[in-house]
Parts: sequence; C-alpha cells; structure tokens
Amino acid sequence: MRFCSSCGSSRLDFRIPDGDSLPRFVCGECGEIHYQNPKVVVGCLPTCGDKVLMCLRAIEPRRGLWTLPAGFLENGESLSAGAARETLEEAGATVEVGELYTVISLPQIHQVYMVFRAALPCPEFAAGTESLEVRLFDEQEIPWDRIAFRTIARTLRNFFLDRKLGAFPTRVSVLERRQPVPPDLRGAG
Amino acid sequence: MRFCSSCGSSRLDFRIPDGDSLPRFVCGECGEIHYQNPKVVVGCLPTCGDKVLMCLRAIEPRRGLWTLPAGFLENGESLSAGAARETLEEAGATVEVGELYTVISLPQIHQVYMVFRAALPCPEFAAGTESLEVRLFDEQEIPWDRIAFRTIARTLRNFFLDRKLGAFPTRVSVLERRQPVPPDLRGAG
Repeated sequence: MRFCSSCGSSRLDFRIPDGDSLPRFVCGECGEIHYQNPKVVVGCLPTCGDKVLMCLRAIEPRRGLWTLPAGFLENGESLSAGAARETLEEAGATVEVGELYTVISLPQIHQVYMVFRAALPCPEFAAGTESLEVRLFDEQEIPWDRIAFRTIARTLRNFFLDRKLGAFPTRVSVLERRQPVPPDLRGAG
Repeated sequence: MRFCSSCGSSRLDFRIPDGDSLPRFVCGECGEIHYQNPKVVVGCLPTCGDKVLMCLRAIEPRRGLWTLPAGFLENGESLSAGAARETLEEAGATVEVGELYTVISLPQIHQVYMVFRAALPCPEFAAGTESLEVRLFDEQEIPWDRIAFRTIARTLRNFFLDRKLGAFPTRVSVLERRQPVPPDLRGAG
C-alpha cells in the first residue's frame, strides 16, 4: 500500500492509531485507517470410494506439485459454497460438500485454511486452467514427497488416520513458520 | 475504494479481469487488481461453572445490546490467539481457549464468525473500552431479546442445547440476509 485508496494521497503512515493496539496504514491527509486482515482459503477433500481427488498445480506457487482443490473465499459466498466453487474450477468436479474437517491457522502468511470433506458421486473430473492434471489416488499412491503445501499434507495425514479410527472430528491447528535448522544440528539426523 | 493503492490513480474500473470470473477493482493506469475478501470474526464463549460471560456493547453497531467477546482476526495471529485477545480486550478476562464451536458464514456482509468454547478459571473480569458492563449469566438469565447479533444468539442456543446433550461438535452454518416478510403474510401469525 503506497497511496490512500480513499483520497489518493501518498502521505501514508504505518503507526498505531489512537485507541488501537496494532500498527495500521493511516492516511496523513484524510485520516482513513486501512485495516488488513487474514484471508480464508477454502477447499475440499473429495473422495470417491477409497480414493482421494487431487490436482497437479499448473501455476505458481508450487507449480508441478500436488494439492487438494482450494482457493481464496470470495465476498458474497459461504464457506461451503466457496469450497464447491474451487473444486469445480480446479478439478472440474461437482461435489457434495460435507463436514468441515481441518481448520489451520497460518499466522505468518495471514491465512486460515478450511478444508471440507466432500463426496464425488461419480468419477467425472477434468483439469481446470490452474491444474495440469487431476486424478484419484488411493492411500498407497499419495505422492507424499510432492505435496504443494504443508496444510494439504497435514489434512491428508489426518484423513487417513481418522478413516482408520472411523470418525472425522473437526481438527483445528496452527502451522507456524518452519524454523531454520541451527548449524550445529544440521546433518545430525 | 476510489484510488489505486499501488499508484494513486483515480482510473479504477470495477470489471471482471481476463481469466477471472468475478468483478474486481482494476487500475486503468498500472493494471493492479485489488482483491477484496471476507473477514474472520473470532470470539469466545467463556464459561465459569454453569454461567456464561457476556459483554454489554459500549460502541456501535448494537450499542446497549449483549454479546460474546469477539472481533476481527488480525494479521499475524492464529484463530485461538485472536479469540483470547478479544476476550481480554472486551471482557478483561484471561481464558483458556478450548475447542472450536460455531462457524457461521455471513455471505451478505463478507464475514465468517468463529467462536471457541473457553474456560474462565476464576471469575475475574472487567469491562474493556468497548463494553459498558461484563457479567456472568446462567441459562435462565440470558437476555434473549437484547442480544446484539444473530450469530451470538445462534451460538448460545446451540450451546445450551448441546450442554443438555453432553457433547459439543463443531457446528457449521450459514446466516443469510433476513428476508423481509411479504405484505400478504404480515400479521398472519
């Protein structure tokens, strides 16, 4: 943010407004306070029988790695509507959105991931413009070393464990920034 | 949004960018696309024994009505950290944030409410600057006709029902815009 979106002034300060506790972009001309807040990423874990539908990313970040269909929640839509839309756009699949499954805060990149379980009634799907390939995987086939995002790997790991346990409670967690390995521990195993 | 926050130009169009499906503010000068997305409201349902902690709002909207402590999730914090912060700010209470309880989409106002159950280990609390009064209510005392938001009323109704049932699954729902009552049904009961 370099200019005030209300008045066009370039006199933007990044400071704590009176009565607030966090720094914001504040316009020195018109006084407008510009709040910035985390975004919600919604997606589906679509299943057809024992298999899970995944997408090979055609775009950056993480082009050429596998993911679940997911993207930013848009104004005017509910969480489940957004999850269904992303699945249609990225995987060409019409799903029945089920229960909310994983909720993962990513505070360092200002995102909250929310993934729903979803039923894929018939195995009809096709790569959307953001996908190179879309296919069904059973548990043994999941490309664990080629998953695009840690949120997706965590969701899939939870899913296969919970499936064995026979229940899918909503799983809420936080993914902090990956800590660099200190030099004296590198190569220590 | 009246000016581009990247270049300061007033040549903003509200149109569907190439390859997109929804209208966005697009700068006619520098080409920047300004995405706008829903915000997350996080809060707590703090309990102390059989009682629930609520806040009487000191600010608009809904000044003079009762709510649970809640507010916008900030960049850099997890959902549960945000819920704890809002409870400390509005109710002067330090809680142990528990499980995610209600998740309510409000598509018409571009918000998602997420309320956690929380334990208030000792009944110490005080009205923050956004509250006129903070107090504990047992179920019979809840001021049902003076609740600030439908999300809060729904959360409380679910809670007292689930407490009788002895389990608190995460409850995901949507609150659509309240439909006006058609003239021919007004007064019909």
